[in-house]
Order: sequence, then C-alpha cells, then structure tokens
Amino acid sequence: MPPLPELRLPPAVAPVPVAGAPRLTQARCELLREIRIVDEYGEHRSIHIPAERPLTVFVDKRELVTLMTLGQCPELLVLGYLLNQRLIASVQEVESVTVDWDVGAAAVRTRHGVADIEARTAHRVVTTGCGQGTVFGDVMSQLHSVQLPDAQSARIRQGTLNRMLETMRQQDSIHRKAGSVHGCALFRLQPQTSEMLVFVEDVGRHNAIDTIAGWMGLHGVGGADKAFYTTGRLTSEMVMKSAQLGVPIIVSRNGVTAMGHELASRLGMALFGRAANRHFLCYAGAERFDSEPEPERAAVRVVSG
Amino acid sequence: MPPLPELRLPPAVAPVPVAGAPRLTQARCELLREIRIVDEYGEHRSIHIPAERPLTVFVDKRELVTLMTLGQCPELLVLGYLLNQRLIASVQEVESVTVDWDVGAAAVRTRHGVADIEARTAHRVVTTGCGQGTVFGDVMSQLHSVQLPDAQSARIRQGTLNRMLETMRQQDSIHRKAGSVHGCALFRLQPQTSEMLVFVEDVGRHNAIDTIAGWMGLHGVGGADKAFYTTGRLTSEMVMKSAQLGVPIIVSRNGVTAMGHELASRLGMALFGRAANRHFLCYAGAERFDSEPEPERAAVRVVSG
Repeated sequence: MPPLPELRLPPAVAPVPVAGAPRLTQARCELLREIRIVDEYGEHRSIHIPAERPLTVFVDKRELVTLMTLGQCPELLVLGYLLNQRLIASVQEVESVTVDWDVGAAAVRTRHGVADIEARTAHRVVTTGCGQGTVFGDVMSQLHSVQLPDAQSARIRQGTLNRMLETMRQQDSIHRKAGSVHGCALFRLQPQTSEMLVFVEDVGRHNAIDTIAGWMGLHGVGGADKAFYTTGRLTSEMVMKSAQLGVPIIVSRNGVTAMGHELASRLGMALFGRAANRHFLCYAGAERFDSEPEPERAAVRVVSG
Repeated sequence: MPPLPELRLPPAVAPVPVAGAPRLTQARCELLREIRIVDEYGEHRSIHIPAERPLTVFVDKRELVTLMTLGQCPELLVLGYLLNQRLIASVQEVESVTVDWDVGAAAVRTRHGVADIEARTAHRVVTTGCGQGTVFGDVMSQLHSVQLPDAQSARIRQGTLNRMLETMRQQDSIHRKAGSVHGCALFRLQPQTSEMLVFVEDVGRHNAIDTIAGWMGLHGVGGADKAFYTTGRLTSEMVMKSAQLGVPIIVSRNGVTAMGHELASRLGMALFGRAANRHFLCYAGAERFDSEPEPERAAVRVVSG
C-alpha cells in the first residue's frame, strides 16, 4: 500500500518558494487504510479507504483549531487555512510550520504574532461545506476587498473547459483507489488550452482548496488567469475562498447551493456545475464563457422541429 | 414552485409530542429557487436549485451559532442541534423555539438556562462533515456514555436492508427536483421488514440528522430498534450522532471515512456503505447483519470454479 504523500505536480511546473517563505517540515503519513468488509454476496474481502486524522493547529503555542485531514500536505494545508481565514496576509508572516504526526499537531511560529487572534476567531458560523465547515465570522465581512479580473481578460472557452474535464477524468487519485475524498485542482488558462498546476485530495473539500491556497501563497502564484476544478458542491465557502485567491472561474462535477450561486453572481464569478464528459451547466458568470455549442442536440432539433 | 415545508411522514405515523414539550413555531419558507443557466448546447433555460439560508440560533438571548440550512424544519433542527451538542439533555429543558425567517433567527428560551454554556462551546473542532462541520470539543469526550443494544437484539437482515434501499430509491425528494442536498431517513426495524418514520433533507447532511434528532426528542422516540439511512459519507460525526441517539445501524449510499470506520468499530455499530440497488459493503458491525447472499455471483462462480 504505497503512500502518495507528494502533491502531484506536472513536470513543467517547478515552483520556487517566494523570498522570505516559511520553513516547512515534510511530514509523511499513510494515505490509505485497509479494512475488511462483507459484500452483498456474503464475501469477506479487503478494500482500501482513505486515511483521516486530526491535526491540531497551534499558533505561537496557542491552540487554534483541529482539522480532520487525509494528511497529504499538512504544512500547506495549515498555511492555506491561515491565509483563507485571513489570520495572516502573506506566508512571510510565518517563520515555520512544524507538523508531527506522532502527536497530530502543527506548530506555527509567526514572526510578529497574529494581532487580535482571540477576537478574530470568536465568532462561529457553521456552514454547508465539507471538511472545513467553519469560517470565522469576519471572513464574510471582507468580501468588499475581493478583486477579480474583468470578464474580457479572464474567460474560458468551451473547448478548454472540456479539456479540463478530460484531464480530471484521466487523473490518478486516492478517490479512484478508495473513494470518499474530495479533489481540487488548479488550472492555468491560456487562450487555446489549460495546464493543470496542482491537484490535491482530502477528506474535506475545503481542506483541499486550503492546501492549494497554501501552495499558491508559498510560490507567489496569483489567481487571475486560473480556474479551479472541484469534485464538491459549489457552496458559498468554495466561492468565497476562490474569490479570496482571485480565481474567477470554478468548475465542479457536482451541483450548486443557493448561497454559492448568489455569492458568485454578486462577485461576477463563473460557476460551472454537473461538469463531466462534455456536459455542464453554467450557473453564473456566463459573460466569462465562450460557448462553442455541441452540435449533436442541435442537429436532432432541426430534424424534429 | 410549491414549497414542501413539512417533514413527510407516512400516514401510519402520527407522533404525539412528549409531556412538557417546548412550544415550536412552524416557520415556512421556499425550499427551491429558480435560476437561469446555459448548458453545453448553448441553450439558456431555467432550473431549480435548493434554497439555503442562514439561521442564527440564540439561546436565552445569547448568540450561539449560525447554521446554513435548506429551511425545511428549522425548529426541529435547532432542538436536535442542542441535543446533539449536549447543550440540553432533553427537549423539556426548552420552553420554546421561535423561528423568524424575516430576520433569519431562532430564539430558544430555556426553562432554567444552560449551565456553563460559555465554557462548553469554547473548544472548536473542524471536521469532515457536510453542513454542521463543527462539533464542540466535549462531545468527543462523552462517548463513554453511549449505550447501544447488543448485537443479538438489534440486527438487520439483508432482505430488510434491500427494502430500505428500495424505499429510498422511490422517495420523492428535493434532491430529485434540484440536486445538491443530503437526505437522512429513520427506519424502524421489525423482524421481517422496516418502516420509514421520517425523512429530512438539508444542504448539510448533519443538519438532516440533527433535525431527525429533534423529531425523536420531541416525540420520545428511542433509537434501539432503528436504522439510519443517509446519502452522505459515513464520517465520524455521522457515527457519533447516531450513537448518541442510540441508533446502532447506519446505511449510506456513499462511502466511509477512516475515523467513521474506527469509531463505529469501537462502538459496535453496523455500517453499510455504497448501498444502492441491492449492492452494499458492510464496513463494520457484521455481527449485527444476517447475510442472505445474492445468488447471482455465486452461481457464476460454481460454473467458473
């Protein structure tokens, strides 16, 4: 049962951490667990399920939160969590992240402390999200600071969208081996194509996007020319986190919630759901979309109409 | 677009609230929202998505938490949330739950206050769950109080399991109309059959089970002879909440997480996943299961072996 601890980066992408980046451990753990089951034929056999373990985050020795995670990239998860919760504005505020799986702890050491950490983590909202189903209340109030590129400069063609879906379909994954995880990938959009930069899976989909946020922060990668793919629903949290990272386009295999739809519409983000095998629904932000309609149904219509 | 605000109870079930039950409003809201989309054929059309709205819970005028919910049965959701978080031990501790959708608030009035509410809600754990992805820390430490019936007295036959799955397959639902919600149902197990008592959907699956917990508490319904069906993954939270309600068997269309598996194994609960169309995997608690193997594969084996 080989662990797959690395983020799977395509060979073309060899990112270099930004100047002043924090020191990170590279804690490793098993990503799969073998269990015995009985099936409908009465057969006893072994299958793999994804690992899941608690990671308690301490910031300057103060306990902040316990995340339940697959454990693929815990240091990037912690960095991204702090960024997405706006507890830090840049990775340079962090001196080091030290993960020790023996005790299930991530020790974050900041350079100058986190101002008002008590007050800023006091307000609790329980959301629809998988995994990181909590956002501290003040994140909601910071949406006015979101800056997305306009619809002319950040858009996606139907052909590019279809190629993204095909890339995801072919992607090797924990999900394929063991189910029960959500995946999230970051794509760089180019005029005629797209390139997958990074792909993360976790037991909670918000851990996956937080890990990507950590990766983007560590390598100084901006969001304006990017699109997210997620296997999870397009919830308000997913939209908000994507917006905070400056990524204006999200594609999901799954559906949308009303708050996710409303937030994306207000922010001018493009949301694509039920996306697989050349099918999709564009729920919001159609002004960012260059439709290249599939011919099949149109042909049938001419015949029947 | 007719709202479906009631819990859909089969006619045989006409539960009566327990003596001393709280007064509950019956707040109503739209459960579906209509949005415009563009599909892969370039066609603009309308579809329905589930509603999702914040509900801020105040206990004796003190703000406790904001839940994101579909809004089907907010009063039962709030009751069940308080029970599952062990902030109350019985519904009789609550005098009234007043939900006002105009302000998105649920005002809970208790008879004698909630002891140590500050301290008991201070510890935050972010979990893998959908929806109610937060459990206050001390819930974890209360597992020793869980009492489940033994494997001889609470078990399930494969035929009964298959009929549960068939009932769920035929169930009318928000999911069928609009996708993007999780469903949870409570079944009463009898020697040769099972009876669906209540079915709830919500944008977060933990809201759905909390609502059922509220319904059980309000009507004094115990868990020992029951089974849960859920569309969501079998996470540790799902297992824990089921155990707290005394329900020893859970069936899911979805898979299992490692913590859900571990917890169920320790508690002696039966977990069935990937359950649909007569297929399933029994992940844990096979001692509660009366296997009646499907003949088809066995027959093929005899031929081939």
